[in-house]
Amino acid sequence: MARSIQMNELTLGVCYYPEHWPEGLWEDDFRRMREVNISVIRMAEFSWAMLEPEEGVFDFSFFTRVMDLAQGYGLKVILGTPTATPPAWLTHKYPEVLNATKEGVPIKHGMRRHYNYSSTKYRELCERIVRNMVNAYKDHPAVIGWQIDNEFNCEKNVFYAEADHAAFRAWLKEKYGTLDHLNKAWGTVFWSQTYSDWEQLHLSQTESPNPHLALDEKRFISDNVISFAKLQADIIRELDPQHWVTTNGLFGHLNNHEMTDELLDFFSYDSYPQFSTIFYNDDEIKPLRDRQSSINLTNVRSISPNFCVMEQQSGPGGWVDRIEMGTPRPGQIRLWSYQSVLHGTDLLVYFRWRTATFGTEIYWHGINDYHNQPNRRVREVAQVGGEFAKIGALIAGTAYKAEVAFIQDYNNIWDGEMDVWHGPLQWQSMRSWFKQLQYRHIPADTIFLQPQTSLEDLAKYKVVVYPHPAIMTDETAALLAQYVEQGGKLFFGARTGYKDLNGQCYMRPFPGPVAELCGITVEDFTLVKGRIKAAELHWEGRLSEGTKTVGFNEVLSVQNPEAEVVARYSSEYYEGEPALTRRGYGQGQVWYYGAAYSEPVVDAILDELHLISPLADRIHAPEEVEIGIRASDEAAYAFLLNYSDQAVTIQVKQATKDLLTGDTLHNEAVMPAYGVLILEL
Amino acid sequence: MARSIQMNELTLGVCYYPEHWPEGLWEDDFRRMREVNISVIRMAEFSWAMLEPEEGVFDFSFFTRVMDLAQGYGLKVILGTPTATPPAWLTHKYPEVLNATKEGVPIKHGMRRHYNYSSTKYRELCERIVRNMVNAYKDHPAVIGWQIDNEFNCEKNVFYAEADHAAFRAWLKEKYGTLDHLNKAWGTVFWSQTYSDWEQLHLSQTESPNPHLALDEKRFISDNVISFAKLQADIIRELDPQHWVTTNGLFGHLNNHEMTDELLDFFSYDSYPQFSTIFYNDDEIKPLRDRQSSINLTNVRSISPNFCVMEQQSGPGGWVDRIEMGTPRPGQIRLWSYQSVLHGTDLLVYFRWRTATFGTEIYWHGINDYHNQPNRRVREVAQVGGEFAKIGALIAGTAYKAEVAFIQDYNNIWDGEMDVWHGPLQWQSMRSWFKQLQYRHIPADTIFLQPQTSLEDLAKYKVVVYPHPAIMTDETAALLAQYVEQGGKLFFGARTGYKDLNGQCYMRPFPGPVAELCGITVEDFTLVKGRIKAAELHWEGRLSEGTKTVGFNEVLSVQNPEAEVVARYSSEYYEGEPALTRRGYGQGQVWYYGAAYSEPVVDAILDELHLISPLADRIHAPEEVEIGIRASDEAAYAFLLNYSDQAVTIQVKQATKDLLTGDTLHNEAVMPAYGVLILEL
Amino acid sequence: MARSIQMNELTLGVCYYPEHWPEGLWEDDFRRMREVNISVIRMAEFSWAMLEPEEGVFDFSFFTRVMDLAQGYGLKVILGTPTATPPAWLTHKYPEVLNATKEGVPIKHGMRRHYNYSSTKYRELCERIVRNMVNAYKDHPAVIGWQIDNEFNCEKNVFYAEADHAAFRAWLKEKYGTLDHLNKAWGTVFWSQTYSDWEQLHLSQTESPNPHLALDEKRFISDNVISFAKLQADIIRELDPQHWVTTNGLFGHLNNHEMTDELLDFFSYDSYPQFSTIFYNDDEIKPLRDRQSSINLTNVRSISPNFCVMEQQSGPGGWVDRIEMGTPRPGQIRLWSYQSVLHGTDLLVYFRWRTATFGTEIYWHGINDYHNQPNRRVREVAQVGGEFAKIGALIAGTAYKAEVAFIQDYNNIWDGEMDVWHGPLQWQSMRSWFKQLQYRHIPADTIFLQPQTSLEDLAKYKVVVYPHPAIMTDETAALLAQYVEQGGKLFFGARTGYKDLNGQCYMRPFPGPVAELCGITVEDFTLVKGRIKAAELHWEGRLSEGTKTVGFNEVLSVQNPEAEVVARYSSEYYEGEPALTRRGYGQGQVWYYGAAYSEPVVDAILDELHLISPLADRIHAPEEVEIGIRASDEAAYAFLLNYSDQAVTIQVKQATKDLLTGDTLHNEAVMPAYGVLILEL
Repeated sequence: MARSIQMNELTLGVCYYPEHWPEGLWEDDFRRMREVNISVIRMAEFSWAMLEPEEGVFDFSFFTRVMDLAQGYGLKVILGTPTATPPAWLTHKYPEVLNATKEGVPIKHGMRRHYNYSSTKYRELCERIVRNMVNAYKDHPAVIGWQIDNEFNCEKNVFYAEADHAAFRAWLKEKYGTLDHLNKAWGTVFWSQTYSDWEQLHLSQTESPNPHLALDEKRFISDNVISFAKLQADIIRELDPQHWVTTNGLFGHLNNHEMTDELLDFFSYDSYPQFSTIFYNDDEIKPLRDRQSSINLTNVRSISPNFCVMEQQSGPGGWVDRIEMGTPRPGQIRLWSYQSVLHGTDLLVYFRWRTATFGTEIYWHGINDYHNQPNRRVREVAQVGGEFAKIGALIAGTAYKAEVAFIQDYNNIWDGEMDVWHGPLQWQSMRSWFKQLQYRHIPADTIFLQPQTSLEDLAKYKVVVYPHPAIMTDETAALLAQYVEQGGKLFFGARTGYKDLNGQCYMRPFPGPVAELCGITVEDFTLVKGRIKAAELHWEGRLSEGTKTVGFNEVLSVQNPEAEVVARYSSEYYEGEPALTRRGYGQGQVWYYGAAYSEPVVDAILDELHLISPLADRIHAPEEVEIGIRASDEAAYAFLLNYSDQAVTIQVKQATKDLLTGDTLHNEAVMPAYGVLILEL
Repeated sequence: MARSIQMNELTLGVCYYPEHWPEGLWEDDFRRMREVNISVIRMAEFSWAMLEPEEGVFDFSFFTRVMDLAQGYGLKVILGTPTATPPAWLTHKYPEVLNATKEGVPIKHGMRRHYNYSSTKYRELCERIVRNMVNAYKDHPAVIGWQIDNEFNCEKNVFYAEADHAAFRAWLKEKYGTLDHLNKAWGTVFWSQTYSDWEQLHLSQTESPNPHLALDEKRFISDNVISFAKLQADIIRELDPQHWVTTNGLFGHLNNHEMTDELLDFFSYDSYPQFSTIFYNDDEIKPLRDRQSSINLTNVRSISPNFCVMEQQSGPGGWVDRIEMGTPRPGQIRLWSYQSVLHGTDLLVYFRWRTATFGTEIYWHGINDYHNQPNRRVREVAQVGGEFAKIGALIAGTAYKAEVAFIQDYNNIWDGEMDVWHGPLQWQSMRSWFKQLQYRHIPADTIFLQPQTSLEDLAKYKVVVYPHPAIMTDETAALLAQYVEQGGKLFFGARTGYKDLNGQCYMRPFPGPVAELCGITVEDFTLVKGRIKAAELHWEGRLSEGTKTVGFNEVLSVQNPEAEVVARYSSEYYEGEPALTRRGYGQGQVWYYGAAYSEPVVDAILDELHLISPLADRIHAPEEVEIGIRASDEAAYAFLLNYSDQAVTIQVKQATKDLLTGDTLHNEAVMPAYGVLILEL
Repeated sequence: MARSIQMNELTLGVCYYPEHWPEGLWEDDFRRMREVNISVIRMAEFSWAMLEPEEGVFDFSFFTRVMDLAQGYGLKVILGTPTATPPAWLTHKYPEVLNATKEGVPIKHGMRRHYNYSSTKYRELCERIVRNMVNAYKDHPAVIGWQIDNEFNCEKNVFYAEADHAAFRAWLKEKYGTLDHLNKAWGTVFWSQTYSDWEQLHLSQTESPNPHLALDEKRFISDNVISFAKLQADIIRELDPQHWVTTNGLFGHLNNHEMTDELLDFFSYDSYPQFSTIFYNDDEIKPLRDRQSSINLTNVRSISPNFCVMEQQSGPGGWVDRIEMGTPRPGQIRLWSYQSVLHGTDLLVYFRWRTATFGTEIYWHGINDYHNQPNRRVREVAQVGGEFAKIGALIAGTAYKAEVAFIQDYNNIWDGEMDVWHGPLQWQSMRSWFKQLQYRHIPADTIFLQPQTSLEDLAKYKVVVYPHPAIMTDETAALLAQYVEQGGKLFFGARTGYKDLNGQCYMRPFPGPVAELCGITVEDFTLVKGRIKAAELHWEGRLSEGTKTVGFNEVLSVQNPEAEVVARYSSEYYEGEPALTRRGYGQGQVWYYGAAYSEPVVDAILDELHLISPLADRIHAPEEVEIGIRASDEAAYAFLLNYSDQAVTIQVKQATKDLLTGDTLHNEAVMPAYGVLILEL
């Protein structure tokens, strides 16, 4: 069961670091927060050196003082455990707690997240500070919940301290029992890598390491984070069962679904849409500004349908020496806030109240500037605050609705990080599908396949896209077959089904476990990269001549007469051979495409499927506008988000009430640049 | 008081390495040097292994023999202390003297400058070799002066040996007294970086270190170099007070002004114009070939108005494995020599007499080739030698004259190395101003703000440009206000005045300490980089439509009615808002521009200021020609340097004598490719 | 005397790793190998962990079982000694056997070739495993020969373990006897690098190390590999004198000629033409697809005129995380097989029988796919197998014939790796000559100058090209003069003859030892790179106007009236000066070109020489087709290889029999894409 935050209304919060400011400013800050309808502050996650200035000497008075004052202003508090930044005394006295580079050089004090999760000493010191901290604050009336650590695996998601190697060995012993099992799982007979003693094992420190080890290494890192988080979660559950527990992400090498299901009340996300804008448009036909963040939020929803955004970008971002982000234009902070809300955010916490005047993040701007005088960003947040007050009770608890879903799974994500023969295809196909669905205003979810994923989880969707599951078990194949049988439409792409859970290749024709379901095998193939050229495709009436493949060319061979060839290669020595097939199976269809999905191919497929927006009969809007629905059993709301820096015109085909203004819209309506509409359906 | 070399005439020297050649060649070398009017040789700076072949065993006979012979030919000698290259026996026995990589790996013997300045053992061994060397040579009649070490901070200007960490700790203790002061200055409360014991401190060895630590680190490195140099300077002053002391630069992380003022008789520069040519023109509208070197020489003049060029490029350059430079074309060596002279060089030492036949620098050519037979480079040097004989007594002691100045300061240079939110603007603006002034033949100086800089230092200039002083104190602001009040014109650009001396941000509206002087504040801003687009500017009659900003857009708000809007943004959501303002203040003006200066903007400003060349009524020359003036109270000489590979025509409006030929020029004159004119004014 | 493989017929083999597969597959594999005429399998080279699972515990039963079965199917076996991949127990117990990074960090277990050649412990353990292995298998009737280790110096050809530094010291002591000799040879007086104790010496671990040390370091590495290989060769010779010994290459820092002459029966090559295709065409005017491999094979022939290809690419290649190669198109595997045969391969071993399903090389495809079902690659190999059966006895033992040769030598190759002032010219000139000769169907050999190279070795060729021998001794110059005198045509390019064997520069005018032979000296020069522009050339009737130089411009000065100026510079300040000269000397000619050879310049020279294909009167073919001849005293065969993906038409001027089909060709014949013809001459 998915774990969601439980809020009665949309709630606004802000990250606040009282330790960065003269105490004399606090009261004015709290007063002004309340003026803009901020009712939650998040703090303390980088405060270990204050709470325990010397080993074993604790002082919790500072934040008690802050919380007393906050409470007086009606502010609630989320407290972060401070384990993301061990103090200098700690790392100096116990250097074994430090993370290390691949070469084994300790990562020195001076930044953050410089510790490893494996050190028993560090775990012991973390348990002690958390236990003391929870005891100190749990009964404070301002507290509403706990955040464990901060941004697990941010910046660094690989670990090479001695303690990590030891923990990896223990993890492997637990997983494999015998070295013989391990040697088989990793194929160590190749290149004479066979291990004859557990002590010979270590995390990958070579170029091009054994790929099966590399896959296990990522699983180990994820398990190691979760076990580290569990230490803290268990203490909080034990001492303070009445408050919720969360942590904030998303970062690599961590199964956030498993962590949330096992330890947390709900997951929290840190939303910085400009990171996405920066990377998103680079080689794109039609850019979708800021909507990489919508993909991320889609993934977050798969963990917790309703969740907290623990950090919402509210100004220019950047460190002193890198990550330069420009200043959000008027309206963008509000737009990004509703982007978070559309996708399921019920508690929205801005980062941060006021820009730090010292440290690495002096350019990671808060809504207030250094000078602390009124500015347009505070005014924009005040507008959101006012709107939340108006509509918050209606929206809170409703959830995003979609009939199309992507399937992802951690095994393929982690294996594909190293494996350039399938990993890069994933992002190519995801992006093409996501963008084409966005253009058509068709909402989409993500399903992360977990051991407990059931037919019921899948059957909610008309169409699921699982583009490149190189790792595929017969069990998963059977589940997917059931999904198709009951009426689902399932899409695969190149490199499906050729690896087992160890990342070893099956001695079966591609696509392995789903070959029979698809009714095809792969006869011949080549990767497409650099000088290895793409082939042309022919799909009468759907694709324009000269459309090229991307990433891979697999020459398909139809094995089952029920499988039908939809498109063929029209160049290369395999001209005329099948490239895209469809097989009716039970009530549904399974499609196989021997390449990575490009936008034109997805466009043609969507036409072929006659897949249209659930709001097609009510709203017509240009591609610049993201449209999604939040609904409960009782009510449904359409969110329209204009990411363009230009005003756009939309058609409202039935008279509909705009929740934010109370106006009724009909026929044409104009959304300003970065405008937001929430329509009652 | 600026420390200048005292020469009676322009003097030619050459670097000579007798230890690289059979002794039988020396006499012929000295004879031929004198033939081309070379009268000074510089040597011994890499000779430690010869002078002290075993620890504590000294042998100074070799260079005595060389100097005896040189003296016989009338050659004077500059001796370099040999501490830039500790011998193999030394680093092998005392590995603690080695510099280390950021990761702490010692930098092995095999190159040069592999030592650290902090090791007490190294300082002790340096003191001993210097003491012995000075005693051995100080009374030799050929000696005229000493060079300390060689090119401090060349190649490596960061240091991570254990001794460096220890010295940094001591330096911090001296600077801050208490850890509380240090923690405040560095804002260590951010990310829980608080130090509770001095032993926890070390030089920055992390990615994205604390920026205030990083700034102090550069100050420490500079102080450390100076204290290392002082050991040697003190010994020389004590034992050999009758000879001058210098060292050669310019390299990073070193306050050359302070070092010169405290220790040296004058500063020396190593001039390799091709380094500059290589990097200078890359993305430029109108390139200024070889004139990056003129900027460097301008900076050197700010240390010592008259100085020595200790190494003047005299052939192709390069190491075996990198830094490939082409061969200077006929005339370029002479041109570069006069470029040095124009900017204040009175002693010009070529690097080197003959190209080394072994070692890393076999392609760093001397004026003689390996084959030692006559060549065009020796002939060209001979021409310079003849000319120096003719004009040297007139020029020596005169100094460069300018009415415009750039202001720079080490705090901003060092802070801007790490801080990408102001550092990169500096070079952009400097280059635009420098180039536009060069096109108009308006000479410019550089002022390095030091604690002792006075109004008198500034008041010499009609216009000063201090483009991006992010770090700005109220004291400096007051000095600048005085400068404007007495009639100066002062120019600021974006990011002025928001940081204090620790690199922490003021809680004041930008531009902080000079906001009142400028009569404006900054309301809104964005950096401009990559996908964050520049805005357009509107300045009626001065800027063509569509002129874009560079680096930053600051939206200015006029706070004082005396401040006048000169140019406005003409695109973006701040269209129509002020971009460039001017305020009359006392007898002068202060300008503020909310971006980095581009060439078109500087061009418009210079038109607006009616700033013209001091020689406008006498000479008209194309942009390819650099024009400057060396003058004393009695005389003044205009230097015209044609950097073009084509002949150019100049207009001489009044009959003027060419010092080099004795001809009188009037009306049109043709300068050949790489030609030089020195006109009596 | 060149060491060649002795085969009675062209023989097909395949790499086979029985340890990667269930034992139940072996018999089917062997049966199918025989079906396609594979008669040799190569194995065991990565099997140490199986043969010696614990230190000192040996088990040779596995491969005995495999060989018994293979023998039953008539398969012969090449056994590899397993020293390229020490087992985990070995490196864990004896970490001193590991190679290290430049910084001294040991290269951990987890890949391959992670050992150093210097460790006495490793040498001892290698000797023991090899001795035991040879004893175990030498009498097995399936064995036909031994491969020592695998791909010496592949991936890593630099070594920094402590044992390497010690071995380098010993090597230096042996070479130089005294430190004084070493200091002189390395010019250590430069930058005070003088060594006063052997212990101070180490392999280069600095940036820009002493270049003479760097050259000796490569010689040391080569000697070290050879001495490591000799340990094994000696054991095999002692215990198993009846079987041949080889190893497979080519990789850097190894004098394969010396190794083969001293230790091996013949050399073996690993042929992956796609590596070459990937890198070859990038900046080329007319690409020669796949023919970089022909250059490599030309070099291999200079070691062993007839040789084994131990690994022939037979599918897509690549590791999990890099080196992605596409799938060979139909016909390419066969084409590449005959490319190897043309150049002298008599035993052709495909890599590998079936694609590995685990490990780093799961994408380094064998001829069989994971699924082990029939595919087109197996069918293509079967075709080659059938053809070998038909023509193999005729071709085996014949050798490639050429009248033109390139000269190379290890001193210049190794010195040129670091020295950017001559190294890059080499490849530029080689490529231009090779391509122009290929277009004209003129076969060419390579001669590697060794101490024992004689006039007889050179006199076989009408034309020899030695483009940039920076290192040149008077002895070599004398040999080359003899070659010219007896009628040879010799070509030099820029940077010839200025260095001695230590890599120190002569104090002689360029081109040093061959200045007199060429009748010219170099007056002036510049490198051409980046912003340093090329000059134009004038050669009436041969070069089109505007033809530019490449790499260097040397201004030549004719010293001997017999030297004639062929082409002159037509731009720059040396316009009109000689660029290309020719001197008649004895019966021959010597040419000097003051730049790197570009294709247009070589084209003009070939026209001037009237150099045409030896088959010009019999065959006319387009440039896409490589033509070469294998001949014995009794017979000769022309190979025509069509690298194009299009069919091409050739003219056969005299009726000629096609060996593969038995057809007689006359007049026009069409070669299909990737087609092969072998014509009886």
